[in-house]
Amino acid sequence: MKNSFLFLVGLFVFSIAKGLSQNIQLMPYPEQISVVKGHFKIDQTFTVQVKGNPDKRIYRNATNFIRNISNKTGVFIDQGFVEPNIQIENPKLLIRINRPGLNELREDESYFLEVGQDQIVLNANTDLGAIHGLQTLFQLVAVQNGSYVFPCVKINDKPRFVWRGLMIDVSRHFMPVEVIKRNLDAMSFVKMNVFHWHLSDDQGFRVEVKSLPKLHEKGSDGDYYTQEQIKEIVAYAATRGIRVVPEFDVPPHATAILTAYPELGSKDTIYSLERNAGIFDPTLDPTNERVYQFLDQLFKEITPLFPDSYVHIGGDENAGVHWDENEKITQFKKENNLKSNHDLQTYFNLRLEKILSKYNKKLVGWEEIMTPKMSKSAVIHAWRGENEGLKPKQSLVDAVKNGHETILSNGYYIDLMLSVESHYLVDPMPDEQLSKEEEARVLGGEATMWSELVTPLTIDSRIWPRTAAIAERLWSPKEINDLDFMFERYEKISNDLEQIGIQHKRNKDVILRNISNFQDIRALDELSKISEPFKVYSRNVGGTEYKMFSPLTLFADACTADALLKRKFNKLVKEYISTENETSGKELISNFNNWGKLNDELKSIATQAPLIERIIPYTARIEGISKLMIDALENKKMSENQFDQLTVLLNQKEDPLQNLDVEFALKKSTLDLANYLRTIKP
Amino acid sequence: MKNSFLFLVGLFVFSIAKGLSQNIQLMPYPEQISVVKGHFKIDQTFTVQVKGNPDKRIYRNATNFIRNISNKTGVFIDQGFVEPNIQIENPKLLIRINRPGLNELREDESYFLEVGQDQIVLNANTDLGAIHGLQTLFQLVAVQNGSYVFPCVKINDKPRFVWRGLMIDVSRHFMPVEVIKRNLDAMSFVKMNVFHWHLSDDQGFRVEVKSLPKLHEKGSDGDYYTQEQIKEIVAYAATRGIRVVPEFDVPPHATAILTAYPELGSKDTIYSLERNAGIFDPTLDPTNERVYQFLDQLFKEITPLFPDSYVHIGGDENAGVHWDENEKITQFKKENNLKSNHDLQTYFNLRLEKILSKYNKKLVGWEEIMTPKMSKSAVIHAWRGENEGLKPKQSLVDAVKNGHETILSNGYYIDLMLSVESHYLVDPMPDEQLSKEEEARVLGGEATMWSELVTPLTIDSRIWPRTAAIAERLWSPKEINDLDFMFERYEKISNDLEQIGIQHKRNKDVILRNISNFQDIRALDELSKISEPFKVYSRNVGGTEYKMFSPLTLFADACTADALLKRKFNKLVKEYISTENETSGKELISNFNNWGKLNDELKSIATQAPLIERIIPYTARIEGISKLMIDALENKKMSENQFDQLTVLLNQKEDPLQNLDVEFALKKSTLDLANYLRTIKP
Repeated sequence: MKNSFLFLVGLFVFSIAKGLSQNIQLMPYPEQISVVKGHFKIDQTFTVQVKGNPDKRIYRNATNFIRNISNKTGVFIDQGFVEPNIQIENPKLLIRINRPGLNELREDESYFLEVGQDQIVLNANTDLGAIHGLQTLFQLVAVQNGSYVFPCVKINDKPRFVWRGLMIDVSRHFMPVEVIKRNLDAMSFVKMNVFHWHLSDDQGFRVEVKSLPKLHEKGSDGDYYTQEQIKEIVAYAATRGIRVVPEFDVPPHATAILTAYPELGSKDTIYSLERNAGIFDPTLDPTNERVYQFLDQLFKEITPLFPDSYVHIGGDENAGVHWDENEKITQFKKENNLKSNHDLQTYFNLRLEKILSKYNKKLVGWEEIMTPKMSKSAVIHAWRGENEGLKPKQSLVDAVKNGHETILSNGYYIDLMLSVESHYLVDPMPDEQLSKEEEARVLGGEATMWSELVTPLTIDSRIWPRTAAIAERLWSPKEINDLDFMFERYEKISNDLEQIGIQHKRNKDVILRNISNFQDIRALDELSKISEPFKVYSRNVGGTEYKMFSPLTLFADACTADALLKRKFNKLVKEYISTENETSGKELISNFNNWGKLNDELKSIATQAPLIERIIPYTARIEGISKLMIDALENKKMSENQFDQLTVLLNQKEDPLQNLDVEFALKKSTLDLANYLRTIKP
Repeated sequence: MKNSFLFLVGLFVFSIAKGLSQNIQLMPYPEQISVVKGHFKIDQTFTVQVKGNPDKRIYRNATNFIRNISNKTGVFIDQGFVEPNIQIENPKLLIRINRPGLNELREDESYFLEVGQDQIVLNANTDLGAIHGLQTLFQLVAVQNGSYVFPCVKINDKPRFVWRGLMIDVSRHFMPVEVIKRNLDAMSFVKMNVFHWHLSDDQGFRVEVKSLPKLHEKGSDGDYYTQEQIKEIVAYAATRGIRVVPEFDVPPHATAILTAYPELGSKDTIYSLERNAGIFDPTLDPTNERVYQFLDQLFKEITPLFPDSYVHIGGDENAGVHWDENEKITQFKKENNLKSNHDLQTYFNLRLEKILSKYNKKLVGWEEIMTPKMSKSAVIHAWRGENEGLKPKQSLVDAVKNGHETILSNGYYIDLMLSVESHYLVDPMPDEQLSKEEEARVLGGEATMWSELVTPLTIDSRIWPRTAAIAERLWSPKEINDLDFMFERYEKISNDLEQIGIQHKRNKDVILRNISNFQDIRALDELSKISEPFKVYSRNVGGTEYKMFSPLTLFADACTADALLKRKFNKLVKEYISTENETSGKELISNFNNWGKLNDELKSIATQAPLIERIIPYTARIEGISKLMIDALENKKMSENQFDQLTVLLNQKEDPLQNLDVEFALKKSTLDLANYLRTIKP
């Protein structure tokens, strides 16, 4: 038996897995996996027993596991619950755990999983590892000979990075408890272990603070988490082996705090909650002792709610406008030999650090907090890069060389609506030569879900499935980075995410039905497969077009960062250009034919759907593009005149006032194809 | 201007509304409505102001109203929030309120709404009426000349019954906070005002009780509401003008309580949470003083969480088995001259009533609590009828004649998966001649969502849209009872419910995608339109097939009580039989042709989807039925042989072990059609 297993690591893993079975579609991919013929059949006699010395959270996880398997497969499993002190003879799944896991940075998360034809064994040093093993096992479910099975495998697995996070901004758009919970479920599903909760910003302060009640009363429009809800979410996360790191962004991004307590501001003015997106001036006054009293009071009350050792203090994007305008502050800088606003912010940060250490908290901050005087114990959160005119990861390299631990988010800004490839290929480990000690300071990374343009209805489709690919980058061996291999597993993981409760698919249809005013959504759905929302900061330029209460139920909100047909179309174009075979030519014509027809189809229902009316100029353009391409493909030749018409159409922009805010996702390949057809020799 | 309005009431209302505009699709339909030509266009300048003396909840409702309008129409409305103390010049919607509404039985819920072309006025005595008016206005949104508008109307409206409830059983299947909240939103949307929360039963006790902690610790599998969550839901309901009536079912249905505190039981045994459905014996011991101490302690702690004046004590289906088996109890009955178990239960109820009145609570109970000695202040909840071998509404008539106030649920058991018609035509007011006083004691009714066979994923599709029709019965004039008129508005209301967050449509697709193992769901979707889940108690006969943790992600769970094509098909058959025209004949053939093909289509994907494999015997049967019908329709003749084959196919049942649990919804009309074809003269 043992000899039939092959143990392999790294680069070669996926090719072997592919060879032995198409059924193995895990994400994150494990460190070591071997696959053999055979499978374990899932039927009603399936049983689970836990042995050893686990934290009690394993019972909830194992019970959830049974429920998920039963719901997915429709098998009426007799065992309803996994509980301590229950003896099961020959359990089908035996989980052995050495000791309770600590929900802390650097805890052992490894596990060993062996699926045999008659029994499954899951061994882990801690229950945290066992939870990961259960998720792997759930992902393994496949169909064989008309039944749901687990394929026979042996897996040895552990994470590459210790900090694998998702940040959710609940300030710009508030996210109710259930949104957070279902995303915690999904994080657990892809083995992420840090939920970074961006709780405070210019647009809202989202935590009930009983001793400073104006914070939630005046700073939240009534949308905040009660302390009981915070405890509920923290406990929910802990049950899934996820740490919760709260962020209170100070001294900048403070409009909401100053709406409640204007006396803490650097400018003598009346503050009110920000409704736009952007970078704003309201900033705490670091020269005011009451600011530190406030912060002490805040953290005294809040830190007991968050058992994790880390608190994120934000600290980003402080242009210091209100500081420069304030004479008292300018004077203070002189008196204290603080040469720049950076120095002043460091002064503030160091005082804040003392306050936090009183409550046994260590500090994380966005990269701007890193100045020569900043204490080395602060974790630096690297976020800036090309969009800010800087070299990506530079601050991460600087941080480890300066002796800081660090986490990376540059490259993982999922709010920018960039392709999954762009995120997947970013490795937290820089190309620079680092010492062993420096390398060890790269803790991992975080996907960041800024919420200027998302609501509870759309947030899942912005986070998932792309964050599953980021989770793989943070968990799996560095060498697991082949895009084709990732895409082989990507849709399957996206489907699994729906089954565990993520609403990215179902809510898309809700938006389309609303846009169509409950007419047929076929054409809208097809259109969404070749359209992507504006990327980076090109939707809501200037930050004032979409206020925080503007509708995000538009066509752009139903589209996703990776248009469903883009990759297939790109391949088809490449194939056609390289081989010019009839089949791919015909398929391209057929595709353009379908896309060209969408315009008429949508026009026919637009009179009853004002939101479709806004889309028509776009589909008219696609109709024009399609006609030109069909003609050229049929003639195997595109004239210069046609090419000019095409480029005009491809570059045309819809009226921004209509808020269509999507781009034609096939533009680049269409242009490649046109360029080819233009130069073709008959 | 005024002369162009027509004021009408009752029976004639709907025909006028139909005549003037197809756009008026309100449910519940208002008491008085007049429609004139013209409309108010919704654009970004839309503003809302509240004047008068409202409860502050109106601001949240008005803000939600703006947000809903904006999300539905995609209009970027400049006003983000409706707040007190803000002056708006010439507000587009002016809401005037005389006084804060009390969230109590018999509060004034009337409103007057006038939509003019340039301004909308909403007047109400209390903010509760104004909330109803806002829902009416939201339902009025329509499309005119490519824009979203409110049609010009004048509406005078108030409820017919004061108690318009929805009961949700959270014991059989626990429903998380967000499930309750979205259903409260939907209740408000259809003007219901009582949420009856069935919190305790044999399968679970769902409330945290700090002084009796075993209740939630041992009685809930960890799935219970914390007291903070209860407060959150009660506040959420109150904001929407909805009263919350909690139910603790005693002395029967007590397995969960006795799992926690077995010493309170009538039998000396070990109790454990019930996992099956049915009627069970565990019952509190009414002769044990500790039972009353327990109840006093329970209600002392719990009643402050529920500000409503009423508590529901259950009391149904007590067969008294454990009482009869207990000698001490038999002895007690003799000593206290209690002749029957009914008398014993009344003894218990009267003592419980005293406890509740200590905490200023009045009592509601299922009809079995009504015995001659029961105090007249108890509200009788009438639920039994034909399924229990009794005359429907008999207990309601008895109650009012005995001097009790009463509410009706017989006829509103939405868990039975009966058609919307069957519920819609049940009127709480009995046919019997009643005095004015007796009539006044009929407070209203409640739809009851028992949860043996529903989960958070499916519950919305079981409650909605049928409960909207029940809500109309409880709100609108008695004369609004035309089925065709109801169906004209039914699909539109169902669509609106999706927009405000109800998941009946989106979650259906989730189930179908899972069943298909993420292949194409077209055929499954088509099949679901002609299939209905087993009705009344024919799914899960005996109660042991589906345990409370069995999968409810099966095909039956994607189907709904009213198969989407049934009504249309029935009409088509009637039309064909009465006119025998070519068009309807062809349409019938085309329909059967499509349904017949589903079998092959599903077979082709079944190898990758074990849950589809279970459906194939059913689609094979439909294929057979379709072939016979096509042949007969084409020949305009069905032979006796064909007819025999058809009836065999129509009556055939799928293997119960496969848990298909659906029936062919077109059976009756198909048989009518066949009978016609069989007797046709060439």
